[in-house]
Amino acid sequence: MRVVKEAEERKNEILDVSQRLFSTKGFDDTSIADILNEIGIAKGTLYYHFKSKEEILDAIIDRMITGQVLTAKKIAEDKSVPAVTRVVNAMMSFSVEGDNEEFVLEQIHKPQNALMHQKIQDSLMKAVVPIITEIVLDGINEGVFKTDYPEEGVELILMYASQAFNDDEALNSPEKLKKINGFVYNTERIIGAEQDSLLKALMPLFK
Amino acid sequence: MRVVKEAEERKNEILDVSQRLFSTKGFDDTSIADILNEIGIAKGTLYYHFKSKEEILDAIIDRMITGQVLTAKKIAEDKSVPAVTRVVNAMMSFSVEGDNEEFVLEQIHKPQNALMHQKIQDSLMKAVVPIITEIVLDGINEGVFKTDYPEEGVELILMYASQAFNDDEALNSPEKLKKINGFVYNTERIIGAEQDSLLKALMPLFK
Repeated sequence: MRVVKEAEERKNEILDVSQRLFSTKGFDDTSIADILNEIGIAKGTLYYHFKSKEEILDAIIDRMITGQVLTAKKIAEDKSVPAVTRVVNAMMSFSVEGDNEEFVLEQIHKPQNALMHQKIQDSLMKAVVPIITEIVLDGINEGVFKTDYPEEGVELILMYASQAFNDDEALNSPEKLKKINGFVYNTERIIGAEQDSLLKALMPLFK
Repeated sequence: MRVVKEAEERKNEILDVSQRLFSTKGFDDTSIADILNEIGIAKGTLYYHFKSKEEILDAIIDRMITGQVLTAKKIAEDKSVPAVTRVVNAMMSFSVEGDNEEFVLEQIHKPQNALMHQKIQDSLMKAVVPIITEIVLDGINEGVFKTDYPEEGVELILMYASQAFNDDEALNSPEKLKKINGFVYNTERIIGAEQDSLLKALMPLFK
């Protein structure tokens, strides 16, 4: 048992250090040697866990997504919070903001990574649609949302959001603000929420 | 002038024949030799126009998209037709139905073609959003649509449609029908059309 745990710890350490190096030096400019030096382990130890830098990147993304999905799930399940607040918070938990995560966006948007990008999108959608749909159903029970097609509506919203906001454009440019406002406005329409009710729930997150 | 025209005709002939072969034999099982045999031209003549089978495929897709965009534009510009009908017809003009076109879907959904798929999506979106938005604005003037964010709404609708319906799943499976109904319902909400008004305009197209 002890050995298994140590292997898992070592793996996470490799991911932590790689993530830090990728985000500071850039993915392309970080070598496996850099990672080995930083941690002070032998080549064999790293290759036991990961066959390449690309595999490390995949694992970092997996870990990130698992974390985001877990956070969204926790938010969704806390039924003491109004559905309006929960739906906004759960969706916002997927925004990539930390300094240590932004390089991931840069990588997945490279043309040669189109397939990886698509796979990430697909697996995210599969995990997230049921979570958000559950909140929308709660909101229908609360009487704050109203739609005959909750799941289809959520799929529509998330598929758009994962692409339209999946970039590193500044959040405060006028175009981006119009896009965000339009998105919130349309989300309210799709799930049948009162106009501006989601906007009001979103505001505190930008303070 | 004559030579230029002939070159253009030859190019289109290559595309026509390739398209027919790709859709009957399959893209992978069609060789450049098959295409040459079928048309009865020399290798050099084909390579003068296209460097590879992939380039032929790209050109077929380009031609298909150009045709679809042109059709949508014509529909959009015929202001004698009600906006409700025009918005439905223009969007439906992008469905790939002909026997000769379905192999394109099969090709762009292959994992190794993820980048090509994304490029097609992006260029389609860029061309189509303004066309459909124009119809929505007409509908707002007619008093049949109502939204503060026409362009954002159209972007949301099209981005979803181009992915959710971009497959060769049977149109009459219960899941697909629910998906289509949900999509029409949500589109009505997004552009602020009366409930079922788009559905009614869509019905004649399925007869």
